[in-house]
Amino acid sequence: MNELLYEGKAKRVFRTDDPEKLLLEYKDDATAFNGKKKESFRGKGELNNRISSEVFRKLEEKGVPSHFLERLSDTEQLVRKTEIIPLEVVVRNLATGSLVRRIGIEEKTPLTPPLIELFYKNDELDDPLINDRHALMLSDLTYEELMKIKEKALEVNDVLIEIFEDCDLDLVDFKLEFGRNTEGSILLSDEVSPDTCRLWDKQTGEKMDKDVFREGTGELVPVYEKILQRLEDATCAK
Amino acid sequence: MNELLYEGKAKRVFRTDDPEKLLLEYKDDATAFNGKKKESFRGKGELNNRISSEVFRKLEEKGVPSHFLERLSDTEQLVRKTEIIPLEVVVRNLATGSLVRRIGIEEKTPLTPPLIELFYKNDELDDPLINDRHALMLSDLTYEELMKIKEKALEVNDVLIEIFEDCDLDLVDFKLEFGRNTEGSILLSDEVSPDTCRLWDKQTGEKMDKDVFREGTGELVPVYEKILQRLEDATCAK
Ligand SMILES: Nc1ncnc2c1ncn2[C@@H]1O[C@H](COP(=O)(O)OP(=O)(O)O)[C@@H](O)[C@H]1O
Ligand SMILES: Nc1ncnc2c1ncn2[C@@H]1O[C@H](COP(=O)(O)OP(=O)(O)O)[C@@H](O)[C@H]1O
Ligand SMILES: [Mg+2]
Ligand SMILES: [Mg+2]
Repeated sequence: MNELLYEGKAKRVFRTDDPEKLLLEYKDDATAFNGKKKESFRGKGELNNRISSEVFRKLEEKGVPSHFLERLSDTEQLVRKTEIIPLEVVVRNLATGSLVRRIGIEEKTPLTPPLIELFYKNDELDDPLINDRHALMLSDLTYEELMKIKEKALEVNDVLIEIFEDCDLDLVDFKLEFGRNTEGSILLSDEVSPDTCRLWDKQTGEKMDKDVFREGTGELVPVYEKILQRLEDATCAK
Repeated sequence: MNELLYEGKAKRVFRTDDPEKLLLEYKDDATAFNGKKKESFRGKGELNNRISSEVFRKLEEKGVPSHFLERLSDTEQLVRKTEIIPLEVVVRNLATGSLVRRIGIEEKTPLTPPLIELFYKNDELDDPLINDRHALMLSDLTYEELMKIKEKALEVNDVLIEIFEDCDLDLVDFKLEFGRNTEGSILLSDEVSPDTCRLWDKQTGEKMDKDVFREGTGELVPVYEKILQRLEDATCAK
């Protein structure tokens, strides 16, 4: 049995025989409002593991490397170990959610170029919005590395927009985490899933992501199933 | 009687005969936590009018122009009319207050170079912290103008540190507002007073600003009187 290193809200992190690799196990838990709302959905872990694996595979195919190595089982994937930088890097193409509440701009305002927001990944402080100087104070990043992370985030956005376009989905916004690998380079880590992206159906505008849970407006599992199905269909159509 | 154009939390703004000039009347009201705590202190308006006038005069003397033209009476000053940019530009030399609560760094951490934070001046939204891109979305500033405002804020900091050093006070942090004058250039506006600066006695560390009201730890008027006294003494000592 691999040693459990950390249990987060959505995943468990296990050591492997290789010190440069970790095993991520996706859990069935869904949380919102920084853990204040919490529920478990049978099958969610498997869906997010499959979706995230498929998205990372497609990103790699399109020239965007990440920590992802391979999917090991229904709920587990093998990743490169990184030292996670305690920043949530949010990219927004359309205004919604906390942005609209925070600064009062109109829902669905197009953001061009895409808006990047940094949040301090710290549950106790409720992941506060921060500026670049705060980010430098709260991490070991140099200014140049922070700028590179932002560029990388915009590049990921461009490619994710394409990937989800093939699934008839609009990528409204998403959250990325980056980590430092054992050589010190910065690598896209964590997950890309309907837990971390807002995805709206291109035809109907239907929300097809964790907002159905946050807002209590629908069933999470069937929605995540559709996302996985569309990703797989898009792959086969190629 | 001049026409009242706007009544804010700390000042009333009146039209004058000259369309390029306004009269600011300092009120006795003190507010904190975005108006949630409110009290009136007889003499506060006069003190802040005198302090702010004296600070703006000293800034000008040291090469930093502002909207300030002259003190007209105990509670009134004449200023250049500007179109206020809806940003609160905060400069911090030592960590305290909302910064410590927001990102959890240690109280009194020295900030070098000084930390600039931007807040959206919007009472309904509780003046949220914003980043540069938000600031550009929420104002008519160009990127270059925003950078110039930040540079200007650091310059004001350098000069204010000197001014308060002569008063045996450490300038911990402060808030500035900038406006666009009738020619379109950006000009330091609003006020510089113990309502908008954190000032700590160099010898005792005593808080000599609105924090005595915010935290309910002392009498506001005697503290503001000391600030005015020290500013005037510093002038005479020259
Ligand atoms: N490649 C990686 N190396 C090390 N840690 C990782 C990697 N990818 C993700 N993590 C971390 O795994 C942890 C578990 O994920 P999650 O359950 O989403 O946690 P959280 O509740 O902190 O969001 C998180 O701290 C996440 O940053
Ligand atoms: N030179 C100026 N021209 C126009 N308005 C100004 C100028 N200086 C300050 N103001 C504005 O005067 C108003 C009154 O000040 P104050 O009572 O501090 O208001 P608030 O409650 O909005 O902070 C504020 O909106 C402030 O931005
Ligand atoms: Mg997470
Ligand atoms: Mg004010």
